[in-house]
Amino acid sequence: MKKPIAEFIGTFTLVFFGCGAAVIAGMGTGPTAIDILGIAFAFGLAIVAMAYGIGMISGCHVNPAVSFGVFLAGRMPLSELVGYVVSQVLGAIAGAAVLALILSGKTSGWDGSLGQNGWGAGYLGEYGVVSALVFETVATFLFLVCILGVTQKGAPNHLAGLAIGLTLTAIHIVGINVTGVSVNPARSIGPALIGAGSNPQAVVQLWLFIVAPLLGAAGAGLLFKSGLLAPDES
Amino acid sequence: MKKPIAEFIGTFTLVFFGCGAAVIAGMGTGPTAIDILGIAFAFGLAIVAMAYGIGMISGCHVNPAVSFGVFLAGRMPLSELVGYVVSQVLGAIAGAAVLALILSGKTSGWDGSLGQNGWGAGYLGEYGVVSALVFETVATFLFLVCILGVTQKGAPNHLAGLAIGLTLTAIHIVGINVTGVSVNPARSIGPALIGAGSNPQAVVQLWLFIVAPLLGAAGAGLLFKSGLLAPDES
Amino acid sequence: MKKPIAEFIGTFTLVFFGCGAAVIAGMGTGPTAIDILGIAFAFGLAIVAMAYGIGMISGCHVNPAVSFGVFLAGRMPLSELVGYVVSQVLGAIAGAAVLALILSGKTSGWDGSLGQNGWGAGYLGEYGVVSALVFETVATFLFLVCILGVTQKGAPNHLAGLAIGLTLTAIHIVGINVTGVSVNPARSIGPALIGAGSNPQAVVQLWLFIVAPLLGAAGAGLLFKSGLLAPDES
Amino acid sequence: MKKPIAEFIGTFTLVFFGCGAAVIAGMGTGPTAIDILGIAFAFGLAIVAMAYGIGMISGCHVNPAVSFGVFLAGRMPLSELVGYVVSQVLGAIAGAAVLALILSGKTSGWDGSLGQNGWGAGYLGEYGVVSALVFETVATFLFLVCILGVTQKGAPNHLAGLAIGLTLTAIHIVGINVTGVSVNPARSIGPALIGAGSNPQAVVQLWLFIVAPLLGAAGAGLLFKSGLLAPDES
Repeated sequence: MKKPIAEFIGTFTLVFFGCGAAVIAGMGTGPTAIDILGIAFAFGLAIVAMAYGIGMISGCHVNPAVSFGVFLAGRMPLSELVGYVVSQVLGAIAGAAVLALILSGKTSGWDGSLGQNGWGAGYLGEYGVVSALVFETVATFLFLVCILGVTQKGAPNHLAGLAIGLTLTAIHIVGINVTGVSVNPARSIGPALIGAGSNPQAVVQLWLFIVAPLLGAAGAGLLFKSGLLAPDES
Repeated sequence: MKKPIAEFIGTFTLVFFGCGAAVIAGMGTGPTAIDILGIAFAFGLAIVAMAYGIGMISGCHVNPAVSFGVFLAGRMPLSELVGYVVSQVLGAIAGAAVLALILSGKTSGWDGSLGQNGWGAGYLGEYGVVSALVFETVATFLFLVCILGVTQKGAPNHLAGLAIGLTLTAIHIVGINVTGVSVNPARSIGPALIGAGSNPQAVVQLWLFIVAPLLGAAGAGLLFKSGLLAPDES
Repeated sequence: MKKPIAEFIGTFTLVFFGCGAAVIAGMGTGPTAIDILGIAFAFGLAIVAMAYGIGMISGCHVNPAVSFGVFLAGRMPLSELVGYVVSQVLGAIAGAAVLALILSGKTSGWDGSLGQNGWGAGYLGEYGVVSALVFETVATFLFLVCILGVTQKGAPNHLAGLAIGLTLTAIHIVGINVTGVSVNPARSIGPALIGAGSNPQAVVQLWLFIVAPLLGAAGAGLLFKSGLLAPDES
Repeated sequence: MKKPIAEFIGTFTLVFFGCGAAVIAGMGTGPTAIDILGIAFAFGLAIVAMAYGIGMISGCHVNPAVSFGVFLAGRMPLSELVGYVVSQVLGAIAGAAVLALILSGKTSGWDGSLGQNGWGAGYLGEYGVVSALVFETVATFLFLVCILGVTQKGAPNHLAGLAIGLTLTAIHIVGINVTGVSVNPARSIGPALIGAGSNPQAVVQLWLFIVAPLLGAAGAGLLFKSGLLAPDES
């Protein structure tokens, strides 16, 4: 039970810190608001927090795409994959639910936003579906190249949490305007389900944030499986 | 006497850097001001500064909730706990007092603010007491998961300062609008007492910033004590 | 084939994250925009991402000036230099091309900008050619001092990715107003070629972003070759 | 000659990155400007850059107050102190001179500012001389606690560059409004001398930025010398 508990807490934290920053601090203007850089650091530093908090237990995937890529790279048995993914999705849902509870106590009211991913008319920078698909696939691929590279044998594994977290920050700086940045199906599912009442479109658009991250992760997983990004055996 | 001195200096620094950023740089607008991200980094990097400066002496708790969680996790004797907490509260009071001295030299005047925690009407994002209680409890719980995880046997302890500091940064990005972020009774007590004259409400609201962090820390401490987030013995 | 693939992916990432942040998030104002600090972190954290993702394979130069400095410092054979540089330039071109694809899907239209480097009238802070030349040469020299210092024998090599990436962030904070910051011929060539249609001037000005970085890198490379910045043998 | 060369380059970099960020990017408003957080990161990351670039040669003091504190802590002979300080001051002057050269190429003109330290009417937050003195002394003391703690025997020395640099960032977030932040006589002397023509007041006020940092550093140096912040011998 240790690994599912760890993955639940870790994915809860990612949504609580990341989406929380977006909806609590990322609204409005003036000195109590943050811009995209603040949201990007909240997501990235959530990974740092949990990589060092629960990393020894579960490896801190907190992302079904990461677990899928690790599986395809041959570093995780299929039997574990399902438990990881279920825990991650449940953790993300719980994180979004606690955020909704906090936001419902805002005196001036709350518009129901929970940091859902999306694209198209009315969504941030208003990019089309092709842009969204390309961005999520490419960004997840590069994210997994970092993850699978720094956690492989011989790499400075103890720095993996910092490297992976800061990579996620970079990805958010670039892509929040395009899709809000998922690269993580669980992170998309949690806010979409809990906020489905006020924002049904996020549920309709969920497919992209499952398909594209898995596609990008598969590319990186197979590339590492092939040995092309692994150091020579000696 | 080494440990109390270290905890005094460390908690002084947390208040001096963190609350100092909020009241010296966080006021007003324009290029000489900072937004929430700057305050969040000042708090987090104060932990980095002291984790590496005094960590070898006292472990750099600089927070009664952290000491309480470490105690409940079975890693610190009760006899040490009291000395730690007293030093932390005194350090926070001293830090707020030096800040007040500096701010009293501001030509254009100073409104008496010292970065006090709070909630409700007129306080930043105007969240209710339930939101404040939930946020502080959950955030302290997650903060302690990081702390107790990265400082346990077998974890990359030398990176604990960076991981814990950056986690505190993430927590501040999310929660400054809700409570100003405490997760640390000493950090709340210092500014509340020194600034009691101009802001008596912060003293009235102090209870929440003692109860909630201790509650969250207790949850994490007992979870680690149970072994559920500790790696298997081998 | 491992090293060219790694350098291709790494330089792709540098352009995709760095120039992507500049053109996707760095345009406009308001909470969905970022200022120079966000762009600076995107460039720097791209290096962190790839130093830990592909560093074990190729050393993660992702920059012809870095490869040239490493070569002059006597740490890389001439035979490898050409393959590195070709892969880097191709990776930068590919990164700019994918960015262009994503940006072409923006509903409100896209002005064709891809984060090209430049100087003079109409370019950011409007600095002259001498300022541009001095900045790029000095900044690349200091960048290489960090790189060649932290990767030499006896230095904490496992931290090189963080140190080098954060140095690149500092350089961007300073210099974006002057030249947009290159210190990397590949990073300049990619966006200039792909965006040549809407911005022919960036192609005309490319020479400076090849000459100055190589000049600065040569200075640092020869300084390390001379042994003046290397620790004494013992 | 290795150590003086290293300290010269290191202090040059601190002024070039830190003061450069303040005057090149910190002026004006809009997306090409930065706020205090950006300047704070430029100063802090300059330390990261050089701690890993030249740290193996000279320890990367790049600050006469640091060298003075290290000397008082008994970790450096008096004979070396003079050479360090001279190199640091010369490096800071050179850094300010190159900045002036770059800024003189700005088409729209340049007001002669080089990021000089100061206080009082017309200087940033307009704090009085007592505030300036208290801030610089206390901040340098805390800065030296971090430096002397993380570089002592048994501490994670390889992380010193990151810890010290990020501490300097925190100090700048807090204090830029008060004094522009020195905690380093060389960093104050360089811009004051090179910019003396357009800003003679910065030369008149230089005394504080020599006295206060040395005072704070002396406190920390003697505290460590006394053994109160050093771990027990075993």
